[in-house]
Amino acid sequence: MILSELGELGLIERLSSKLKQKLPDGVFGIGDDCAVIPVSQELSYLITTDALIEDIHFFKNKILPQDLGHKSLAVNLSDIAAMGGIPHSVFLTLSLPKDLDVYWIDKFFDGFQALASKHNTLLLGGDTTGSVNKIAISLTMIGYVHPQKIKFRSSAQLEDIICVTDFIGDSGAGLASILENQKETDDSVYLISRHFRPEPNIEKGVFLAGQHSVNAMMDVSDGVYSDIQRIMKASHCGVNIDMDRFPISDQLRRFSKKNNIDELEMAATGGEDYCLLFTVSRDGVDELAKLYFEKFKQPFYPIGEITSLNSGLVFMNNKKIVSLQKKIFNHF
Amino acid sequence: MILSELGELGLIERLSSKLKQKLPDGVFGIGDDCAVIPVSQELSYLITTDALIEDIHFFKNKILPQDLGHKSLAVNLSDIAAMGGIPHSVFLTLSLPKDLDVYWIDKFFDGFQALASKHNTLLLGGDTTGSVNKIAISLTMIGYVHPQKIKFRSSAQLEDIICVTDFIGDSGAGLASILENQKETDDSVYLISRHFRPEPNIEKGVFLAGQHSVNAMMDVSDGVYSDIQRIMKASHCGVNIDMDRFPISDQLRRFSKKNNIDELEMAATGGEDYCLLFTVSRDGVDELAKLYFEKFKQPFYPIGEITSLNSGLVFMNNKKIVSLQKKIFNHF
Repeated sequence: MILSELGELGLIERLSSKLKQKLPDGVFGIGDDCAVIPVSQELSYLITTDALIEDIHFFKNKILPQDLGHKSLAVNLSDIAAMGGIPHSVFLTLSLPKDLDVYWIDKFFDGFQALASKHNTLLLGGDTTGSVNKIAISLTMIGYVHPQKIKFRSSAQLEDIICVTDFIGDSGAGLASILENQKETDDSVYLISRHFRPEPNIEKGVFLAGQHSVNAMMDVSDGVYSDIQRIMKASHCGVNIDMDRFPISDQLRRFSKKNNIDELEMAATGGEDYCLLFTVSRDGVDELAKLYFEKFKQPFYPIGEITSLNSGLVFMNNKKIVSLQKKIFNHF
Repeated sequence: MILSELGELGLIERLSSKLKQKLPDGVFGIGDDCAVIPVSQELSYLITTDALIEDIHFFKNKILPQDLGHKSLAVNLSDIAAMGGIPHSVFLTLSLPKDLDVYWIDKFFDGFQALASKHNTLLLGGDTTGSVNKIAISLTMIGYVHPQKIKFRSSAQLEDIICVTDFIGDSGAGLASILENQKETDDSVYLISRHFRPEPNIEKGVFLAGQHSVNAMMDVSDGVYSDIQRIMKASHCGVNIDMDRFPISDQLRRFSKKNNIDELEMAATGGEDYCLLFTVSRDGVDELAKLYFEKFKQPFYPIGEITSLNSGLVFMNNKKIVSLQKKIFNHF
């Protein structure tokens, strides 16, 4: 059997099932945005790793190196935010072809460092190696959090309201615009920027993690359609999503109309939004919305609810059940 | 300018000089085998990252996947050992071509896991992604150590004796034998095994880190010739190495004779020995040798001494100064 027959999820499940280890109390490993290593009653470390591979995750001639530097760090910061953590430090591994222009590396590093400075993230190590012809970037980030405030994917409760913190679908539309080599418009410039320069939601993550009414949290990396299934699986529940409630930017709305795209489907499956996806108890949602708006001068957006396990996954659009054809993103 | 003109060390220096960050007290970043994050008066975390790239660090048709799994973990364990630490957990990132045989991945993971179990190292996360055609492996490992026991490269003292914990040169000779497709002999099988399956020296590292007489320590990854220069640079000292004192295995001795190789030069520059290289105060070396032998039933091997900064780097062989032509290993 070759890898493409097994798929990415298949591979992870296969390797996980081979793992013969018992985790000590308080240690969490594979299966959430970050691993958790408890240090004291007041402190746990969060650790996350992400790789970006040329021609798999990015095309070198389609993204500026400074944007790639920003994005490489942002996706890891987003994982720390998703568990309610504050970033501490990062380890950067670069595998680079020997004919790569040093200017490219300088610019990559500028983008990386600007975002690291903004979030007080220390670059403490890594590795630099050659590669035959493709760029491979791998980051490991360490964050910290109070152990009582960590929000897992596994703690969604029946009747919780499912919410996102930002417009969804912009990034996917930005990618579509890039891949189709469209002529730039004001709208596409915005959408592409949302794809290349996601802003990690550290402050929002810390705030939401501090709220008792918030039960489960993660970030949206593969799209709400895929990611909510991770909460379902971890929390052993069903999910009802009302796509009519999706927060859609004006830019995506106009772009979708012009390009004959279903904006709600793009919002569900486009991926790489890197906003937060969380569930909040039905009783607490109004109070949370008030506090959240006071703090951030923005709302969050309810898009559905947690249902019982046997209700399964339901996406509704205009009161009809929708079958989203797009498969879960699979790297192999 | 392209990367190959800058070189690996040049790149690290260039990026380090661009780094605008002030490290908090007790935090150490780039420049040693591991980064150090202090947690309490009794605990610091050590973090190290290493990447292994196909056709740069290994050839897929030359190494068994189980050996590559072992070695990927071993080189990271060796970095933890070099700072006197005990391994805690590891994060494994695999970028794999979609046509890779799943059998290969299974065997890789078996080799990885066998060594992880042996050293009580938890696999807590990572990433799996596709790649266009080459395998890229990146590991980040976390270890722990008492802050007072960490041994740095920067603390060698004038007149310290420089020692290694094991035979050197075996791994380089093993690699030479593989690359030349030599017919297997008992000697080459031993040398190749030393190349493919290095044993990390966790216990020895912990023991040496606990000794006041030991001042500086690191592991030998690029060969004594390159690695001792890292201690020189970090400790602002000179180094005098007596190559006649190099510990050479009988197998390397016979292999070298047969293949017309200078065994001492191979021992100095072959690299990937993954034994420990440490400096010990002249007054303490006899007592340390006694304690060490009692504990490990093996000696360590003095190979030189720390001299003053203006004495520079001197490699002596048969009472003559030797110029080692081989350049520092450069991935670009």
